[in-house]
Amino acid sequence: MRPMEDQVQLIVQPMGLRGDVAKGSTLLGSLRSLGVPITSPCAGRGTCGKCLVKVLEGGGNLNPSTSAEKALLPRVLDEDYRLACTARLHGEVTVLIPPESMLGKPQMLTEGLSVTMPLNPAVTEWIVKVDPPSVHDLRSDHKRLFDAISRDLAVSGLSMGLDQVQALPSKLRKHHWKVRVVLWKAKQVLEVGSPRAQGGLYGLAVDVGTTKVAAYLVDLRNGEVAAATSIINPQIEWGEDVVSRITYAVDAVRTRRLQRALAEGINHLAEECCRRAGVKRSQVYEVTVAGNTAMHHLFLGLGPKTLGLAPYAPVIHEPIDLDARRLGLRLNRAGKVHVLPVVAGFVGGDAVADVLATRIHDQPRWQLLFDIGTNTEVILARRGAVYAASCASGPAFEGARIKHGMRAATGAIEYVKVQPETLEVSYHTIDDEKPRGICGSGVIDAVAQLVQVGVVSSSGRMLDPKVKADKSMAEFVIAPGDVTASGSAIVLTQQDVREIQLAKAAVLTGCRILLREARVTMEEIERIYMAGAFGSYVRPESAIAIRMIPEFPASMIKAVGNTAGAGARVALTSLEARKEAEAIAQAMRYVELHTFPEFQQLYVKALSFPSPGESKGIAAGRLEKR
Amino acid sequence: MRPMEDQVQLIVQPMGLRGDVAKGSTLLGSLRSLGVPITSPCAGRGTCGKCLVKVLEGGGNLNPSTSAEKALLPRVLDEDYRLACTARLHGEVTVLIPPESMLGKPQMLTEGLSVTMPLNPAVTEWIVKVDPPSVHDLRSDHKRLFDAISRDLAVSGLSMGLDQVQALPSKLRKHHWKVRVVLWKAKQVLEVGSPRAQGGLYGLAVDVGTTKVAAYLVDLRNGEVAAATSIINPQIEWGEDVVSRITYAVDAVRTRRLQRALAEGINHLAEECCRRAGVKRSQVYEVTVAGNTAMHHLFLGLGPKTLGLAPYAPVIHEPIDLDARRLGLRLNRAGKVHVLPVVAGFVGGDAVADVLATRIHDQPRWQLLFDIGTNTEVILARRGAVYAASCASGPAFEGARIKHGMRAATGAIEYVKVQPETLEVSYHTIDDEKPRGICGSGVIDAVAQLVQVGVVSSSGRMLDPKVKADKSMAEFVIAPGDVTASGSAIVLTQQDVREIQLAKAAVLTGCRILLREARVTMEEIERIYMAGAFGSYVRPESAIAIRMIPEFPASMIKAVGNTAGAGARVALTSLEARKEAEAIAQAMRYVELHTFPEFQQLYVKALSFPSPGESKGIAAGRLEKR
Repeated sequence: MRPMEDQVQLIVQPMGLRGDVAKGSTLLGSLRSLGVPITSPCAGRGTCGKCLVKVLEGGGNLNPSTSAEKALLPRVLDEDYRLACTARLHGEVTVLIPPESMLGKPQMLTEGLSVTMPLNPAVTEWIVKVDPPSVHDLRSDHKRLFDAISRDLAVSGLSMGLDQVQALPSKLRKHHWKVRVVLWKAKQVLEVGSPRAQGGLYGLAVDVGTTKVAAYLVDLRNGEVAAATSIINPQIEWGEDVVSRITYAVDAVRTRRLQRALAEGINHLAEECCRRAGVKRSQVYEVTVAGNTAMHHLFLGLGPKTLGLAPYAPVIHEPIDLDARRLGLRLNRAGKVHVLPVVAGFVGGDAVADVLATRIHDQPRWQLLFDIGTNTEVILARRGAVYAASCASGPAFEGARIKHGMRAATGAIEYVKVQPETLEVSYHTIDDEKPRGICGSGVIDAVAQLVQVGVVSSSGRMLDPKVKADKSMAEFVIAPGDVTASGSAIVLTQQDVREIQLAKAAVLTGCRILLREARVTMEEIERIYMAGAFGSYVRPESAIAIRMIPEFPASMIKAVGNTAGAGARVALTSLEARKEAEAIAQAMRYVELHTFPEFQQLYVKALSFPSPGESKGIAAGRLEKR
Repeated sequence: MRPMEDQVQLIVQPMGLRGDVAKGSTLLGSLRSLGVPITSPCAGRGTCGKCLVKVLEGGGNLNPSTSAEKALLPRVLDEDYRLACTARLHGEVTVLIPPESMLGKPQMLTEGLSVTMPLNPAVTEWIVKVDPPSVHDLRSDHKRLFDAISRDLAVSGLSMGLDQVQALPSKLRKHHWKVRVVLWKAKQVLEVGSPRAQGGLYGLAVDVGTTKVAAYLVDLRNGEVAAATSIINPQIEWGEDVVSRITYAVDAVRTRRLQRALAEGINHLAEECCRRAGVKRSQVYEVTVAGNTAMHHLFLGLGPKTLGLAPYAPVIHEPIDLDARRLGLRLNRAGKVHVLPVVAGFVGGDAVADVLATRIHDQPRWQLLFDIGTNTEVILARRGAVYAASCASGPAFEGARIKHGMRAATGAIEYVKVQPETLEVSYHTIDDEKPRGICGSGVIDAVAQLVQVGVVSSSGRMLDPKVKADKSMAEFVIAPGDVTASGSAIVLTQQDVREIQLAKAAVLTGCRILLREARVTMEEIERIYMAGAFGSYVRPESAIAIRMIPEFPASMIKAVGNTAGAGARVALTSLEARKEAEAIAQAMRYVELHTFPEFQQLYVKALSFPSPGESKGIAAGRLEKR
């Protein structure tokens, strides 16, 4: 629409960037339109004085400094400094962006990794002055708003929902033609409101696990997490694992039931995060969602039937942007949802998010990641290649199906040590409280120790239990009744060991097939990441001792926390990350485990524990070749 | 997404058109993507044999003819003929489109004008063969559908609503990977369904008048009107004219009430048209709507407050595409609405549609159009210039506020002749039935005759009524009680004459100011169009005799029917027409009558009727200069 003669050139140092921007637009808008991540805590209101730039050339092509602007500039600075939000371009200008005016401090994306991602969320806010109508200016309210935004921000192709258009005339008049505008992707107007309102600008990143749904409320002005919480996936009512939910959701009615349950769960998480952070739900403008393919489908109300039948193709795998209301989410009325892409029937947005958060696809040497949960993703990557497999490990690692299993909360036994010969048990509980149960890392420790001391054989039989109950099943007492919170003993049963065997064999088989398919040897792997709530707390030595993962040196292993959640968070705060997620999904090669000819054979082999001597060696840190 | 090397050149004769299209795409899809209006009654099923093209060069770059294709080709043709829907391009090809394969027969857009518009609706249907999934082809259903459409139709940037994605897996499997796809603007998938279904492809064109709403159900496969009907605008409950509705709709609740009433009215029209044509509402995929700016706002639920206050700016004036459901319209679930652009507070989409249907903006000499209704649009145009004014003529022309006024239906007196001296009345009724009332054209005839015979003075006083009732008001008997259907006399009262005076003065003043503002003299005008239900039936001699329009020769006047409805219809069947509507709206200069300095003075002057001698001259066809 805008003729070329209305463009002026802007040169940005130290990047050496050049671009044509609209004549009359602000430096702030122009810089953002060129992708320069400049800070603006007051959203361009001209009140914070933080968007400082130094004019190197062409200062005469900017409007003169206002006295208000000069008052905000630090005294020590010479006259060449301007506030980007106040300076408007009328001709070619060269500016230097000082480091302190740049966005992009390192964000602590995961507990174990610090990744620097420039803050560039899809949702941004702007203060816009709109020309009031007059007899000589009969533009519609809609057009005068769009003209003002286009001029200030140097953007085009704006759109606005009917709801917002309906509310526009009263908003513009109420706020005397100066409004705060919330934009999505610099093209869709989500909200027009008071310029004075301390209206927050928040987003919600959600990691939809089969068992657990975690949410992070993120302040989009600075990328910081304002609150985080999690709940059990409400869909658990219809089945503990992915397959039982796929089996349940045979028709549209049942699929919708699961969709609604999950949406209500996310509404609950949003409400809880908002309550904790003192934020209104109407200030939450976008949600990003990462989940495995079945959760992805059920969140979108897509029938997961095809995921349960060969060739297990998803209904859609591209990233999706929708109105949040369309999915039953209650946020800002115009709020958006961004759903991360999925790769295949059993490799979903969670795997993409894992890679996005850890950047294992960007390393010169091979990296191996385990995101452990009810489904465990195993991902092998180096620059230019990403392989992924999904293992049906079941809920045992998360404490389910374990007799005294519990989640990692106060009183959970999270560390276990068993003395050889005496079989004396020492343990540690979370918050040093009386034991109430045993969480995932405690269970793996216990199994690993019992294997090492010979109480559990390599076939998984409990040979010499410390206590034989009057029941038929063998069990090993971790904490006797006189020290526990309930007064009953906390034990590990033969059945518990079997559950762990099945789960760990699934992961180990997945890993082995993945390495074979990628033709990568163990020696070529530089580092191993353990992700997920359980993965981050399990002791690497114990995971190796029970052969949940191959016999790598424990020192190669790094716990990285909830990388799926971290990936959803980075997608929330960075449009570049969304593009990268799409590239990762396209590059990711899905390795189908069940059609692998030797799967059954490898799985049976993987059920075994090592013999006592073998595991002790590993625990001591020596690398043993297969 | 598609690399350049996957493009091949297609040359189309006799147009001499050249374009790059996707390798492997059908000739039909490629021709359509280049904007060539080729016919395809079977929607590309390969069954009708109508999309014949002659291959001039590069026949070897097409797939070989199938025997089915050969069977469909007329025997008289040589081997160079192919069916465009079956031939696929694998290299550069030059084709000739025979005239009989072209769409675009003249459409009778209005009763008085025949305008040729090539059929190119936003909604089109296609038969698409989708590759079924296999272990070697793990694309999602969504991607394999889009790939198939993109390949066949040479389009990109497809999208699809979540509803359609949710239904996709079962549709594809139910129809064995061969489906009928309904597309909107060759980019949005509205429906995926059975390829065998005799699913119609319909659209609804709606002219929303202040008093009347007219709808045309159009078969989008051939552009023909399948049914048409009209109702009184249900908003009439909240005021007869635009100003009273604007006054009523002061808040969001009342605006929504008016929006819903109108939407339900359109639903009723759609239902009635569908019933008459034997079409299902789910086969109606798009609605186009033209209305004055107040109706436009109230249809969209936009508060019309700004239309009632200077400078009378609309909330939005660009053309709008929305989901029909969003506005409460019940058509196909994914159906769309296209709302024609408006120009200013009192010049709306109806005026744009008037111009679009008559093409008065495309003539070398000045054309003048009156679209007569409760608001009367006066439009003056020639190539490169369009001026428009809106006159608050009130509902009198439509029979309201006239004592025995009725709509033009059976028994309405639609023609009146009064003998000089004797004052003997002759008349004609619709369907030759006993008189039941008098419709607009009859009222104007009656007033014109009474002015000519001197019963009504130039100031509008009834001097010598045939009948003086016992009531205080003078009245003239048109039909005595012994011949009418009710047994009571049908009369024209002094008050009726006053109503007509006010209405005609509004139109005449508007016309005069418009001519002055455009600096166009009466002599420069080539032709005058009378549009609207009333405008098309009023006798030009009578309209001139009462000075509703300036004293032009009656022979210059042409009745053109409901041009607003015709414009909505051409917008429904032609994407080019939509672009043109936008250009017309942008070019249209709105002339604000009320702020014109001499408005009041001109209006008072326009209230007068000519003196008897003066009008007789006009009625005889002589042009008298002012």
